[in-house]
Parts: sequence; structure tokens; C-alpha cells
Amino acid sequence: MSDTTATQSASQNHTPKSDVEIAQAHQLAPISDIAAKAGVSADALIPYGTHMAKVDVTKHPGQPKAKLVLVTGVSPTPAGEGKSTVLIGLTDALSLLGHNAMVALREPSLGPVMGIKGGAAGGGYAQVVPMEDINLHFTGDFHATTSANNTLAALIDNHIHQGNELGIDPRRVTWQRCLDVNDRSLRNVVTGLGGPTSGVPAQTGFTITAASEIMAILGLATDLQDLKRRLANITIGLTYDQKPVTAGDLGAEGAMAALLKQAIHPNLVQTLGGTPAFIHGGPFANIAHGCNTLLATRTAMQYADIVLTEAGFGSDLGAEKFFDIKARYGDLDVAGAVVVATVRSIKYNAGIAREELKQENVDALEQGIANLERHVDNIRKFGVTPVVALNRFDTDTPAELKWVRDWAERTGVAIAEADVWAKGGEGATELATTLLDNLTEGTSTQLYDPANGIEASIETIAREIYRADDVQYSAAALRDLKMLKDNGFDTLPVCVSKTQYSFSDDPQQLGAPEGHTLHVRNLIPRTGAGFVVALTGDVMTMPGLPKKPAANNIDVDSEGRVSGLF
Amino acid sequence: MSDTTATQSASQNHTPKSDVEIAQAHQLAPISDIAAKAGVSADALIPYGTHMAKVDVTKHPGQPKAKLVLVTGVSPTPAGEGKSTVLIGLTDALSLLGHNAMVALREPSLGPVMGIKGGAAGGGYAQVVPMEDINLHFTGDFHATTSANNTLAALIDNHIHQGNELGIDPRRVTWQRCLDVNDRSLRNVVTGLGGPTSGVPAQTGFTITAASEIMAILGLATDLQDLKRRLANITIGLTYDQKPVTAGDLGAEGAMAALLKQAIHPNLVQTLGGTPAFIHGGPFANIAHGCNTLLATRTAMQYADIVLTEAGFGSDLGAEKFFDIKARYGDLDVAGAVVVATVRSIKYNAGIAREELKQENVDALEQGIANLERHVDNIRKFGVTPVVALNRFDTDTPAELKWVRDWAERTGVAIAEADVWAKGGEGATELATTLLDNLTEGTSTQLYDPANGIEASIETIAREIYRADDVQYSAAALRDLKMLKDNGFDTLPVCVSKTQYSFSDDPQQLGAPEGHTLHVRNLIPRTGAGFVVALTGDVMTMPGLPKKPAANNIDVDSEGRVSGLF
Repeated sequence: MSDTTATQSASQNHTPKSDVEIAQAHQLAPISDIAAKAGVSADALIPYGTHMAKVDVTKHPGQPKAKLVLVTGVSPTPAGEGKSTVLIGLTDALSLLGHNAMVALREPSLGPVMGIKGGAAGGGYAQVVPMEDINLHFTGDFHATTSANNTLAALIDNHIHQGNELGIDPRRVTWQRCLDVNDRSLRNVVTGLGGPTSGVPAQTGFTITAASEIMAILGLATDLQDLKRRLANITIGLTYDQKPVTAGDLGAEGAMAALLKQAIHPNLVQTLGGTPAFIHGGPFANIAHGCNTLLATRTAMQYADIVLTEAGFGSDLGAEKFFDIKARYGDLDVAGAVVVATVRSIKYNAGIAREELKQENVDALEQGIANLERHVDNIRKFGVTPVVALNRFDTDTPAELKWVRDWAERTGVAIAEADVWAKGGEGATELATTLLDNLTEGTSTQLYDPANGIEASIETIAREIYRADDVQYSAAALRDLKMLKDNGFDTLPVCVSKTQYSFSDDPQQLGAPEGHTLHVRNLIPRTGAGFVVALTGDVMTMPGLPKKPAANNIDVDSEGRVSGLF
Repeated sequence: MSDTTATQSASQNHTPKSDVEIAQAHQLAPISDIAAKAGVSADALIPYGTHMAKVDVTKHPGQPKAKLVLVTGVSPTPAGEGKSTVLIGLTDALSLLGHNAMVALREPSLGPVMGIKGGAAGGGYAQVVPMEDINLHFTGDFHATTSANNTLAALIDNHIHQGNELGIDPRRVTWQRCLDVNDRSLRNVVTGLGGPTSGVPAQTGFTITAASEIMAILGLATDLQDLKRRLANITIGLTYDQKPVTAGDLGAEGAMAALLKQAIHPNLVQTLGGTPAFIHGGPFANIAHGCNTLLATRTAMQYADIVLTEAGFGSDLGAEKFFDIKARYGDLDVAGAVVVATVRSIKYNAGIAREELKQENVDALEQGIANLERHVDNIRKFGVTPVVALNRFDTDTPAELKWVRDWAERTGVAIAEADVWAKGGEGATELATTLLDNLTEGTSTQLYDPANGIEASIETIAREIYRADDVQYSAAALRDLKMLKDNGFDTLPVCVSKTQYSFSDDPQQLGAPEGHTLHVRNLIPRTGAGFVVALTGDVMTMPGLPKKPAANNIDVDSEGRVSGLF
């Protein structure tokens, strides 16, 4: 749920109701009924109120059986193209057609809810509910992640303060604190001031919780023991003689795992169509892999016949990481993929200004379609047949829609329109049928073999997915590379952090750029999560609030009814 | 639950089991059974798993009917005298005697669980369960408080960053961020570094979540509307022309209240004796009032015939604040009071060194008893008849126990021994009977009328409770006093922050000091909570971790079973 649908709801006039009003007007089924429908036994259900639950992963050791469909998107406009909304509506459509379909999605992050977004659980008549609770704390997974992250930070600083037996270089501690709040003032801080009883001064910072390595670890762990192993493997910094120090060296993994013992269980809720939905985990889509947890996906796949899951941003970011990191670690076969596009995103990729996207412009479609074609082509490289979902907006014109349909027919791309914001599952039955017609089995692959070394992995992604001619490493990246090789970290999969607005590392290069150079600035070992982050640009890991924060509109009445989420 | 019982369990050898082992060996009743036993209707129950629930305060608008008993203590040893443990065991004893008794207690803070304590939910066979979950996140109330606190901090800094329309003086922002972690490095920090896009630099700090004014507000709010009103009244700092700025000026109260919409509902769990227990809220006992929430107390009083609740530290701190702040705001009649003492605390108040407290010393009892006498006398000033609970330790000798019993008979003080750590409710039946014999109705009072001004309130407490001859204000306190008067804050009740080790403001003056001078260093308006904090010494609002943190012993196995909490 990385992308907002606010623009969609603002630009469409299907209804004057806000997302939260639509959600609150809906009569939810008790979560015990949803669990029964899903086939989750009562003893595995951990209720959180009457409409949310966790499913105890220690209590249903079955094997995944469902066909798995990945929902991804084109290079987006700044407002996003509604991937989560389409995913939810499409799954409801599959349910309407009689399939045992389920949703697996990321959890919203609280910080952005208070910033611009005001909520992130789908939109219109394609939402997961109870949306207020999903957006506000949910079952506490983000807070547990924050706790585990900051307990480790406290243990590190305490170790240094209490004599520093491990010889940790305070200047080379890379572990940061985190909070699930949009607070730019926490990006760069100095801690440990106040004299010798109040710690050792350090220049550091806070990330938003979604950017914590703990969130990435929670996303990839296969069970509690695997979680603990990964937590122990976290590299927190270097010693004075430049050796990596791990969370395990500090004896921190047991307490962190205990703090995450409930967070590891996937959360079960429902869509407005009454479809079971697993909403669990929320790692960043640039410095992490950007998908819901592996455990949620696998749990949904145990109970459903078809599971729809999402990866952040487009085929170049979320989808590539989904196949090369999550599917690799989770041994997942991907049966199909949906590429969510909009008429306005195609025009945007032709370089049309945001304020002109509402005006009919068929020429711009002709120029911008190369972006969608590239994403479609990229998905095929992973052995999966892509289906394009054209997410409808009121401003789309008949001529524009016809042009896109003609393009698809001409190029042999499976396509269907989706109108789920206004119509829910009913707005995606054609898309559902098209998807079902294009599912495969056992054909999905990864792009590279990490055993060949991280330079080879990056080179393969750059050539095959980004269509770059060259990869250049900064001096710092070369130093990082040496450190990775010295410590045996260079055969981990790579997680490229790159702008979502371009296939290249330059957000201005829209459309389908070729022959560019990928610039690697830094290589950061995430030895707990099990990948190396390759930074190719500035990454903002702590957002700020806008001049008029969404928080100012959020309210709650005397019965506990929340307003101002949209 | 401010005091640990670890020393008790370490010094006693009733059983080799740790608290968490005792708790885990216990067969818990489903929370729905506990709720039914308590009389809570199913529609008001919000389950969190099978053994914890919240009780929706909007769904049972009944009136409190139970007799309310306050459990307080003597001036403690550094290890604490086991107030919570006695309270839990005594309530179980009342249940055994056929009474409809319930517990109302504070929630443990997570930071100290990772530090020295390793857990805080009673001890031995007098615990509330499930103790692992109560100690680790529980139902998320502390995290919600952290979120609300830090959302306000982000809104303040964002307001200044985005043009500062209100003219907030960045140097005079008193609102701090918080985290529920013991992290001394966060006491004094500089935020907002990194240049003009990353905020305005500020010298500030983090408190532990229990010290946040939001926690105090949650503790005193009577419903969601009252919560919102109090949140809006928070003073966050001053403008350039020294006018108070409130959270309401920033439009922050709606979002904060929405973040607290679940946290406001009291949590229901059970004791090892199967007695319903409301565990809710956890404000500091020095810079705040140190009791569980008013809503939890009132909710328990609706369902029970007798409710036992605790206030942090002794009669001079927790009990005084309980009567003068919580009972005043909540219109509570207090029917009885239990003063928890130990043989070793009496000896400690005679100046006996900690390492010698295990040795028999009747002379020391004669010298130290003045402390207990003073606490007993203080309780009487609030119109309530105190009962002394002598919490038993293995090191108590027959001669010592006899001396204390003789003292009680000689002075007409009601007393009974409690052996609840080893025996649960069975160890406190005599205490229960003694308590029942000493309950009154409609006699409890407050000590002062805040309308007479804060100097009069402080003077009354100092004279009547601390037995000081004089109150002196520092230059800073006099400036604060002017500010309070200028803004009409000087008729709020006072919350004195003072050492718990002495009736005076000097922790070295044990026993029952008289004729001393109370030094007021600062007066801090907590206009949201509705009191003024009078600082009389250094207050540590962010603890640190010890050299060997409890976190290093905490672990979780593959089934989610936690170890290392005690």
C-alpha cells in the first residue's frame, strides 16, 4: 500500500463519501466468520477486537497450495496509480466469480497517515476494513518493530557507555533508532549529551519504522527461530579495527524476538466484499524489499486457491525484488502478474505536466506507452505472463481508452479495465477472467544467482530490467564492496534503492530510457534481512509533515468513531 | 507496580520457580469467563487474544458502587516492599472469602522490563496473568501514548519549520518526545540538524513514555470528550512574547485522541487466583500522580463490591496524590487503606545498611518504626482508617515479628501479616478480614482546596504530610510562579515530585524527620493533566540500562514461550 488513492477519490465524483465514511457505513462480518470462511481453525485465531485477528503461525503447519499473483505497476505519477485498490477490488471480483481468493498486503505506516495520506487501506469500494483500526496502530506490529529496533539501539549505546568490551567504534555505529511518525527533525540528531552519566555523544538519526531492518527481517522470516537467527545477524556497526559487530554479539536477539513474538503472526481482516485479507508487515520499497511478510503470503496460500499480493512501485523495483528476494527466500512460485496502469500515468511518462493530465491527449499515450511496454516486458523476464489492469478515472476519455485497448490488441498484451474504486469487485470481473486465463504453473524464475557476487547481480538487474549500458561505483561504494567481500557478505541478494519515477537512477528520465549508466553510491549490508542495499540516489528514510498535515483533520467522536481518514 | 519484588523472590526459597515459570504453569481461564464472572456484558468486551480484553467504556454507563481500598506503603528500601504483590494476593484472599473483589493496577512499563526488573505484574503466587504479555506490549496502551506524544512533537516542530505562524519560541518548547525504552543517550539530544530541509535545530530530550503528560491525561480522563479537552489544554511551550501555546492551538487534539481511542478502554485480565483485574495506565509516581487510570478504577467499581487499587511509593507521595488529584477529579470515596510494610523496611528506616537487613535487629525496629507510624498517621488525615500489611520475608525472625505485633497492639494500629508471594490468596486471609473490619463510608477527604492558590496547597502538604517547617522557592520557581499566576494556572492541584526515600526532600533523611525545609526548584504547568508539578529535587525521567541488562536474559522459544522475565 505504498501509493495513495486520494487523487483518484478527489478527481472522481462517483460519490461524495470519503473512504472512511464508506468503510464505516459497511456492515462488517465478525472476524470469526471470516476465519471460518477462510478455513482457519478457531484455536489458531488470536482475536483483536471483533473484526481483526492474528493467525498463529505455529498452529497450522500446512503447505502453500494457492496460485500466487503479483500485482505491480508502471512508473507512477506522484499520486500513485491505485495498485492496492485494484488488488483488493480484483480479489473481490475473483470471490464473486466463485473462487477461494484472498488478499495479502502490507500494513499502512502511521507516520504518513498523519502527513499527506490520511489512510492507506485501498480506497472507495475497494478497501480492507476496519480501515480506521488498520490505519491507526492495527494489531501493534509496527510498534513492536519500533520497540525491538530501539531496544537494540539502547543496548548498543549502553554497551559503549558501560566500558565497551567489544571495542565498538562509536563513530561507526550504523544502527539508527526509529519511530512511526513523519518527523523531519529526527533525521539528523546528536544523542548522548549531558555529561558522563547520560551516555556517549553520537551523531545519528531516526528512520521511520518502515525503514528499520527489523521490518525487513519480519517480512522475510519463516518462523520464530528464523526470525531470531536473522535478528542475531544484524550488523550494527564496526569495531575500532573495522570488524562487523552484530546484534548477536550484544546478546540482543532473544529480547528482540520476544518483543516480536506476536508481531510475527499474520493479521486477518476482510475486504468490503467480505474476502479474507492478510495485512502484515510494511518494509520500505526502496531500501528494503517492499512487500507484505512472507509468512502472510504463505499463510494465505495455505487457505486460498488464489492469492493476490503486491510489491511496492513498478516492475523495476517491487517486482524485481519480489522475485529475486522474497520469492527466492520463500520458495514461492508465481502464477501470474497484474501490471496496474492508468491513462494518466501513460501520459505522465510522455512528459505531460501533472496539471494537464486530466485533458484528453492521445498523442501523449503514443509517446508514453513505451513505459508500460517496458514493465510488461520486464515481468515476462521472470517467467510470468503479465495482465495489464487499466485503472479507470472519470477523466479518461473514450478516445483514450480505445487507443489503449487497440495498443494491447496490436501488441498481444492481455488487458482489462478496472473500476473498483466506484464499483468494488463488480468493477473488475472482466479483469478477473483475463487474469485467470493467463495463469501458469512452475514457470516463474529469478533473474540472477547471488553466488556470482554482488557486482554480477547488480549488472544483470541494470542490463535486463533498467536497460542501462553501464554500472559505475563511487569511491565510497568501492570501499563498501571491499568490506562486503572481506566479510563474505557479497553473495547476498541485492536490494537496489532507486527512484520509482524512472527505469534509470535519474527521476527526470521518464518513459523507457536506454543506454544510461547506473551510479552506485553505497552498498549497505543488511545481514539480518539477508540482502545488500545498493543506493543509487538520495533516499529519504524519515519523511516530514506537509504545511497542512492530515493530522489536523483527524478527529474522534464520543463513541470512538474516527473521521478525517481518506 | 512501581516496586519490584525480585529481591523478595531472590531472598525467599519457597520455590525455585521464577515468576514467569509460575505464571506459565498456571491454567488461565478464558477472558470471556472472567468477564462473565465480573458481570461485563459480551458486547462491551474487546478481546486481545484469549486471555486479555478491553472493556468498552462507552458501553456500560453504570455508576461505581464498590468500596474502594487504597494500597500504599512505607518509605521503601531500594528494592521495594511488594505493594502490588500484596494487593493482588489480598484481593485473591477477599475472593476466597466470598467477596466480589477486583484489582485495579497500573500497567508495567516496557523500558524497565529490559533493564533491571525483567517484569512487573506482581510476583510469586500473587501475579496478574498472562504476565509475559502484560509485560511485553500488553494491549498497546503505552505505544499509543508514545504515538500521540510524538505526533504532537512532530506537529510542533513542523509548525515552526513551515513558517511558525503562532510565533512559538523554539528555545521555549517544553514538550519532549518519548519512548518506552531505558535509553540514557536520549535524555539530552539536539534535533533538527542537517540543514534547512530537515527542520529547525533544537536542544531537547526524550522521556520514558510513563513520564509523558499524555499518560497522566489518560490516567485522569473520564471519557473520550474529556480526554480530547485535556489533550487540547496541554501547554507545549511559549511564544516569543511568553504566552503559553497549547496543543489545541496546533489543532493536534483530534488526531491525538484518535490515536488513543482504544487505549482509553480499561484492560481486563485475571490474577492467579482467578480474580478479575483491571490493569490500565502507568503514569510516573513523581512528576505525575502514579496511579492506574480513573476509568479503570471506576469501571472496576461498577462491577465489584470491593476494589483494591494502588498508588506509587508511600503515603507522602502516591497516597497524597491519590486523594488530592485522582479522587478529587474522579469524585471517589475511599473506604479503606492498606499500608504495606516489611520488617526490613522498618530496619532500613533506622539507617541499617542494605546488606545487614537480613540479620535480626529488634533495636532497629524500635528506631525505624517512626516511619511506619508517620505513614499510618498521614493516612488518617485523609479520613480513612489504615490497616498495616506486614509483607513476610524468610529472613524475618519470630522476635522481630512479635515486636511489630506488640507495637501495633500498643498503638492501636490494625495489622496483619501477608505471605502472598509463597501462598497467594491463602496467605492473606487474616489481612482480608482485618481490612473488612476497618472499612468506612463517606469519610474520605482531600487535604487542601486548590482555589487557595498553589503556594497554600504546597504549604499544607509540606506541613501536614512531610512535617516540614518551611517551604523555600528557588529564583526559578518564583519566576515559574509568576507565569502560573499570569495565566491562571495557580489554582490547579499540585503534584509534588520528591524523593520516595524520605518525608523530606533529602533522600538521606530516613525515619520520620521533622522541622525540615522543603525546597521547590521549579513549578511546571501540566495543564492537560490538570495539575502543576512542583519539583523538589532532580527527577530522572529517562532511566538507563544497567551493565548487565535484563534484556540479555530474555528469550522466546519456537512456540512463542518467553523466558527470562522475573
